[in-house]
Amino acid sequence: MGSEQTLKHVIVDAEKRKTAVGHFNISNSDGLRGVFAAAKKLNVPVIIGTSEGERDFIGVRQAVALVRSLREEFGYPIFLNADHTYSFERVKEAVDAGYDAVIFDGARLPLEENIALTKKCVAYARKQEALRQAQGDQNASILVEGELGYIGTSSKILDVIPEGAAITEELLTKSEEIERFVRETGVDLVAPAVGNLHGMLKGGANPRLNIPLIKKLREAAGVPLVLHGGSGIRDEDFTSAIAAGMSIIHINTELRLAYRQGIEAGLRENPDEIAPYRFMKKAVDSMESVAFNRLKLFNNQK
Amino acid sequence: MGSEQTLKHVIVDAEKRKTAVGHFNISNSDGLRGVFAAAKKLNVPVIIGTSEGERDFIGVRQAVALVRSLREEFGYPIFLNADHTYSFERVKEAVDAGYDAVIFDGARLPLEENIALTKKCVAYARKQEALRQAQGDQNASILVEGELGYIGTSSKILDVIPEGAAITEELLTKSEEIERFVRETGVDLVAPAVGNLHGMLKGGANPRLNIPLIKKLREAAGVPLVLHGGSGIRDEDFTSAIAAGMSIIHINTELRLAYRQGIEAGLRENPDEIAPYRFMKKAVDSMESVAFNRLKLFNNQK
Repeated sequence: MGSEQTLKHVIVDAEKRKTAVGHFNISNSDGLRGVFAAAKKLNVPVIIGTSEGERDFIGVRQAVALVRSLREEFGYPIFLNADHTYSFERVKEAVDAGYDAVIFDGARLPLEENIALTKKCVAYARKQEALRQAQGDQNASILVEGELGYIGTSSKILDVIPEGAAITEELLTKSEEIERFVRETGVDLVAPAVGNLHGMLKGGANPRLNIPLIKKLREAAGVPLVLHGGSGIRDEDFTSAIAAGMSIIHINTELRLAYRQGIEAGLRENPDEIAPYRFMKKAVDSMESVAFNRLKLFNNQK
Repeated sequence: MGSEQTLKHVIVDAEKRKTAVGHFNISNSDGLRGVFAAAKKLNVPVIIGTSEGERDFIGVRQAVALVRSLREEFGYPIFLNADHTYSFERVKEAVDAGYDAVIFDGARLPLEENIALTKKCVAYARKQEALRQAQGDQNASILVEGELGYIGTSSKILDVIPEGAAITEELLTKSEEIERFVRETGVDLVAPAVGNLHGMLKGGANPRLNIPLIKKLREAAGVPLVLHGGSGIRDEDFTSAIAAGMSIIHINTELRLAYRQGIEAGLRENPDEIAPYRFMKKAVDSMESVAFNRLKLFNNQK
């Protein structure tokens, strides 16, 4: 795969092939190593995500430096996304730092406000994109994703479904809304509420996805859809969701759980070891394994 | 502090002020965040080191990308060193990747062989340095350090002193040897055996340093000296060693221990937390604390 591929090309291509690009969140270089190793084994494109908290921990510019260094070293289609960003200022910070994509998340705001702020973010990204292009930057493009429909905020293990999260029919994203949202904001990507949920429910699989709704929303939106809250979703629901119009799928909770459990196992199995690259190896391998299985499924590889 | 300072300037300056530059090893971005936070609080230059194993874990080029991104973002004198490298091929790899300094460690080889291989590494670094300069690279200079006298190889908790490690008088580095070694190899820095030891001894402080010998070796060498195996050395020995001619001091074992213990505490205190930036915070803070105390001492800050 060539490094000349932009994220936009990768997404268009995924939709054509009826596959989805995997998006995985990381907090440090361990996560990046694990996810990248998985993608490389399958030779599939991949998106690295950092939420606001994750970004602060690894460093906004340091995340960019790491992902770019892999893209350049291996000529690999690996991209960096500023996951759920709740203010224009933090969207601007990510764009200025060199992120390939940003998400402005106004899902909990009144629709008018969500539209106004998302639009402002799109305008800023377009301006910076033009500047980068003028400077001859090969990775000039910056995708902006908007969020429509509240699905909870935390990638953690949940006891109950978050209050107000859209899992009843009337709270799911509507065709008219998504059409208007995309038209008025100019976003490149949009994430609807289709029965998905951030986090993973204790003691049982997450709610089912509304596949016919995904198909309807993809048509109404006119741009590719993004599925958040992928952890805990059934394999067959993923496959149907991709066929129906989901082009990016976010996995975070599963990866976080694998990291923590991998660290615990690594410490237990190496009680006297203090070299991090030995006692943390299992944690990286555990994340690689989660990312590998998800990427395989999303890319229809047997 | 300006980013225009090269590592060479920083070392010359440290020697003038009778301070030493702290060198800290990392295996992932957590270690880098901890060490950098400590240096920034004290506003002192710092060297990040990666051994061969550490380098493979974080990624050779990814370590460069991370350190450079901090240097550029903050205009900060932070540098990257390829710690103990045992082959010309791996020295070349680090130089090509953009490391600011490399160590060829031939301390366990016969002197003639150590000289021949170190010389080959110096020649390669000089060639690449000239190339970088011609390309207008601001961080063109590459320092090469040679090792003279075996002090053990592992940054871990030791039950006994490693076999063959130089702690008896006759095994310590000699003036004639160091003079010849520097003259014939052309190294920028040299690390002698002066009673120091890699790793930390269980149940007691490490051996004392031979301060008069450091003074003699600095004069004979004609280039700044580097103290390896800094973990476990007494504070007053550090102060005397710096005054006698040590311009860089390596700390690894203490930092590794702090990381492991910090992770364990972070997991214990946050039993249900799966966000790495929350349960790993204590581990980063623990490393910051170790680096802070050492940097304070090395820089004569009260």
